[in-house]
Amino acid sequence: MDADARIEARLHAAIERAGGKGCPPRFSEALAYAVFPGGARVRPQLLLAVAAACGDPAPDLADSAAAALELLHCASLVHDDLPAFDDASLRRGKPTVHAVFGQPLAILTGDALIALAFETIAVARAPDPSRLPALTALIARSIGAPNGISAGQAWESEPAIPLEQYHRAKTGALFVAATMGGALVAGGNPERWRTLGQKIGEAYQIADDIMDAAGGGEAGKGAGKDAQLCRPNCVHELGMDGAIGRLKARVSEAVASIPNVNGADRLRQIVTAQAHRLVPKNIAVPAE
Amino acid sequence: MDADARIEARLHAAIERAGGKGCPPRFSEALAYAVFPGGARVRPQLLLAVAAACGDPAPDLADSAAAALELLHCASLVHDDLPAFDDASLRRGKPTVHAVFGQPLAILTGDALIALAFETIAVARAPDPSRLPALTALIARSIGAPNGISAGQAWESEPAIPLEQYHRAKTGALFVAATMGGALVAGGNPERWRTLGQKIGEAYQIADDIMDAAGGGEAGKGAGKDAQLCRPNCVHELGMDGAIGRLKARVSEAVASIPNVNGADRLRQIVTAQAHRLVPKNIAVPAE
Repeated sequence: MDADARIEARLHAAIERAGGKGCPPRFSEALAYAVFPGGARVRPQLLLAVAAACGDPAPDLADSAAAALELLHCASLVHDDLPAFDDASLRRGKPTVHAVFGQPLAILTGDALIALAFETIAVARAPDPSRLPALTALIARSIGAPNGISAGQAWESEPAIPLEQYHRAKTGALFVAATMGGALVAGGNPERWRTLGQKIGEAYQIADDIMDAAGGGEAGKGAGKDAQLCRPNCVHELGMDGAIGRLKARVSEAVASIPNVNGADRLRQIVTAQAHRLVPKNIAVPAE
Repeated sequence: MDADARIEARLHAAIERAGGKGCPPRFSEALAYAVFPGGARVRPQLLLAVAAACGDPAPDLADSAAAALELLHCASLVHDDLPAFDDASLRRGKPTVHAVFGQPLAILTGDALIALAFETIAVARAPDPSRLPALTALIARSIGAPNGISAGQAWESEPAIPLEQYHRAKTGALFVAATMGGALVAGGNPERWRTLGQKIGEAYQIADDIMDAAGGGEAGKGAGKDAQLCRPNCVHELGMDGAIGRLKARVSEAVASIPNVNGADRLRQIVTAQAHRLVPKNIAVPAE
């Protein structure tokens, strides 16, 4: 199976378990609606790519870790779209979870997807049982406090936002969990893979800012949402050319940080190819 | 250290970690506010009591599991108090998290406490590493879907609520996690402890209904909130005497279900004593 099929299969199994016997029917629908059809599944793809570069000796665990990351990403999107945050009516081109199912089920969907992510890891087959708690701790930190997604988002409620720290927590943390998690499940040394996740996270954030300024983006959130919500955006700071230059630099640094494992060449190609897809062709191609 | 001190110490350590370096200052405050000062810490007390009845051979793991349950309970209260659900302004006699910190931080506080609970388990010292994933799976199911707290709460968004299933998921699941988790951390057989958790959960739900009908309750939610929100309440169904009779029956069944471990006598005393405290003396004493 290719990476896409592995990710979707594990996500389907998880959502079927959560929405199965005993689940309130509308809640079951909401859980599936929040996860399918997916976006680019960038984070689980990255985790599997790193695991593959390390030889992928524990594919079942890698699939579970990848699915867990995507469930957490989906949870964060569902909560982020709520009226208390972005008040978004569209996500990936369709109505948001709260727009369809109401705010109570949207809040509960996020909560249940977080629980499901940890359950998915906990029931994975691991060649060494100590990898499961290590992975759980890594992933829990990437979504919690002080430096995970929740903390990143919480900066929006402070009088001043430290821009770098905000992006590192809100966007970068899950990319770092992807690269370090990919190494961890494959028995590698997670610390050697931290920079790759950080740099890709930064590139992704810059691409998101570019897409917002130009209109479009993963969220399908519509042009200029950041300006409208007084959110920091590096295009406002550097101009479009400056932002594209910074994006290229981050991708170069990401590629350069890849440790010399057997599958490093293939991973470098994947990261470079993904970077080309970050920004639509009519804006710029961040080629290296 | 007694159980109270063990629980508070582990909760303080967890909240200090989450609210530490890098955490947005108001978010750090909100996390602590949601957890301290606590209520009766009923669920972690129950977990530690079961672990003690089983000999408590792994106290560090027991403390972490107990703290994790309380963090999850606090998370569920913070989300449950939101305007989308109970719209409560008071909890344990003080303003709710969203009343003080706003809805965005309240939603994020719940999310981060869930993550923190799983991190707390993941970093615990376990005599056998396979106990950590088993505990993680047990606890994740107790808060997620199809049969955990989120699913229980989600029944409130359905056109009809199956009363027993609703209470079992919304209130009972975390009590079952407490008794089964207490056995699991101590190397016992969790399945033998399921009934105890279920019966205590049912007793607790009935007590909550009684308190709501009479005014008061753990939530300090004010009298008649269930009637006001059209929530099912067994006092409406059975009358006050009938509800008290059912509460006594559940406590008896709970005590009778305790497996014959070395510490069973002491645990029977604890469960009976706790049951006396479920309902204020001016209503009734559910003595056995």
